[in-house]
Amino acid sequence: MRVMILGGDGYLGWPTAMAFRNAGYEVCAVDNYLRRRIASETNSDALMANPLLPERAALFERLTGGEIEVAVGDCCDFDFLSGLVRTFAPDVVVHYAEQPSAPYSMMGYDEARTTLSNNLIATFNAVWAVMRHAPACHIIKLGTMGEYGTPDIDIEEGWVEIHHKGRSDRFLFPRQAGSLYHTTKVLDTDLLWFYVRIHGLRVTDLMQGPVYGLSTDEADLDPQLMPNFHYDDIFGTVVNRFLVQAAAEVPLTVYGKGGQTRGYLNIRDTLQCIALAAANPPAPGELRILNQFTETFSVNQLAERVQRVGRHMGLRVDVQNIDNPRKEMEEHYYNPAHHGLIELGLEPHVMTDEVVAAMLEQVLPHRNRIAVERILPRVRWR
Amino acid sequence: MRVMILGGDGYLGWPTAMAFRNAGYEVCAVDNYLRRRIASETNSDALMANPLLPERAALFERLTGGEIEVAVGDCCDFDFLSGLVRTFAPDVVVHYAEQPSAPYSMMGYDEARTTLSNNLIATFNAVWAVMRHAPACHIIKLGTMGEYGTPDIDIEEGWVEIHHKGRSDRFLFPRQAGSLYHTTKVLDTDLLWFYVRIHGLRVTDLMQGPVYGLSTDEADLDPQLMPNFHYDDIFGTVVNRFLVQAAAEVPLTVYGKGGQTRGYLNIRDTLQCIALAAANPPAPGELRILNQFTETFSVNQLAERVQRVGRHMGLRVDVQNIDNPRKEMEEHYYNPAHHGLIELGLEPHVMTDEVVAAMLEQVLPHRNRIAVERILPRVRWR
Repeated sequence: MRVMILGGDGYLGWPTAMAFRNAGYEVCAVDNYLRRRIASETNSDALMANPLLPERAALFERLTGGEIEVAVGDCCDFDFLSGLVRTFAPDVVVHYAEQPSAPYSMMGYDEARTTLSNNLIATFNAVWAVMRHAPACHIIKLGTMGEYGTPDIDIEEGWVEIHHKGRSDRFLFPRQAGSLYHTTKVLDTDLLWFYVRIHGLRVTDLMQGPVYGLSTDEADLDPQLMPNFHYDDIFGTVVNRFLVQAAAEVPLTVYGKGGQTRGYLNIRDTLQCIALAAANPPAPGELRILNQFTETFSVNQLAERVQRVGRHMGLRVDVQNIDNPRKEMEEHYYNPAHHGLIELGLEPHVMTDEVVAAMLEQVLPHRNRIAVERILPRVRWR
Repeated sequence: MRVMILGGDGYLGWPTAMAFRNAGYEVCAVDNYLRRRIASETNSDALMANPLLPERAALFERLTGGEIEVAVGDCCDFDFLSGLVRTFAPDVVVHYAEQPSAPYSMMGYDEARTTLSNNLIATFNAVWAVMRHAPACHIIKLGTMGEYGTPDIDIEEGWVEIHHKGRSDRFLFPRQAGSLYHTTKVLDTDLLWFYVRIHGLRVTDLMQGPVYGLSTDEADLDPQLMPNFHYDDIFGTVVNRFLVQAAAEVPLTVYGKGGQTRGYLNIRDTLQCIALAAANPPAPGELRILNQFTETFSVNQLAERVQRVGRHMGLRVDVQNIDNPRKEMEEHYYNPAHHGLIELGLEPHVMTDEVVAAMLEQVLPHRNRIAVERILPRVRWR
């Protein structure tokens, strides 16, 4: 089996590339380093330095004997991407190649347009490259639980039967996201569903919650193979941000009331989910949507947990509620389904105190590199 | 009141510009002639020649004394569009500036990408230009009834209350369109709704059905002021196509079984609807969605009607069912609501035999210019 990872330099892309290679796949990792450029421009570099893809791939090969092919280029360049799909002939394309920061997408016109164009055109090109050169290939697309927003009804896995005035039909579950970044993922889903219906593509769209963690079987082989660990307001997701704040002994910053509830998962479970999706492709003409998270927490619950574990480790950890830079409900109903991946065989790594402690242990050696001024929100939703 | 028409050279854009001017508005018509370029490239020129915007505006001014400002440029160029919005300071922006052909959007990669990029970025730029320079301005966006597709439940006006597992919430009515062009309008709606929620814009999104007709109060002043009348498979909508086939005495071509049912309206009613929307802006932060059509017909019903009227006028009019080049249901439930515009004051011009006869009378003098090979479908959905 041959798998191509679009966005192979990312927090999830690189660990995914290594995991597929270790599982015996031929792997090609594609990236144009857009996230690195944005991180430099916004003073948001990761906590630990991450070598470029060729260097990481060479190290991985020295340690494991497994070769990961690297292609540096832009998925928005159709000639580049379709040429790559033609020559590599993937059985699976994992599409992570999107500008992933919600705050960046809300900074201003240029950042919003970069996000919109990059994300839509990368998806569009992936669809067309597969239609042209590998029509049986399974596209695994990373969506986000944020596409659904926080509706006042139960969130199903992608689809919902609507009963209305005595009739009923099945539709995409309604989507209404909280940032332009999340909205581009809504547009991606609409676009994928259109081409799946018309051209019989095989697509899995994974609605993923925020991911936490640094440790995977392959990343643990060498610090240079570690995922990019961002803790800033642009790329840092809430758990990683709290870990760094605890390690730096600055208050954990809860946006607003902290009742915002989301579904979270360990990076090890992301790898399991992608592997399970790849091993169980949908039929041609099927858009399979799976909700990819293992547990739901409110921001307050996460802060309390990191605080408890940090204090137990002797750190001075306070929690501070600050003005919410985002427009979002801070207290809301939240009951999303997530049984599809469990049925495929997912065995969740839940966020125990031991897991939190292990993450803190990985961050603490780098505490003197933490730039605390990057953590507070620099982007407001208006 | 000051109104800016994006796509002011179009079938609807130019008549809209004239109607607003005659109603006393200051009017600026903006276009980059994309439709003219595509028409030339695809051998799909309109039946009658239409002068360029400056010439049409000059003629209109000679005949009525009313000045229409013209700006030739690309709404995807943000500097151009935002500069225009800053200096013209519109109270209303009517946004028609989209690649409007479903078959064109299904021709191949280049045409699909042009459609996706042009339509999304024009909408995105309109939103940002208004946010920056005219935040109280009312954006009237032309969507399409095709966004809804043909669901097996009643179609509401933009929104639906979903009752699910004992709870309920209000959402955008589910959208699932039949071409990439129609899908870009779905994406537009998602994008507009996002920016309306976050930034308190005032937007009316009009879900319009196929429009027919050549006659408006202003267009009737001079043949050179007539709307672009396309009858080809790329830009010709079904009624206009049937009229031309009847005039040329070639069979009316019904795609497939002909049970495809849609909501139609006369171009005069489009002008009424836009005027009513402009005179009744929504509140800041409201996305008002109205279904813009006056009657539903199946394709077979339209063919029968044009046949009956044509034969009555002495024309030899046959009807022929041909292979459907599209992927669509040819027999389906269809019950869309359309009360919002009636409540605002719309007085429909229904499609009587007299209306059909009058349209045929306008086409017949040009029958020797009809290129019948342009009418049959040249693009298949695959």
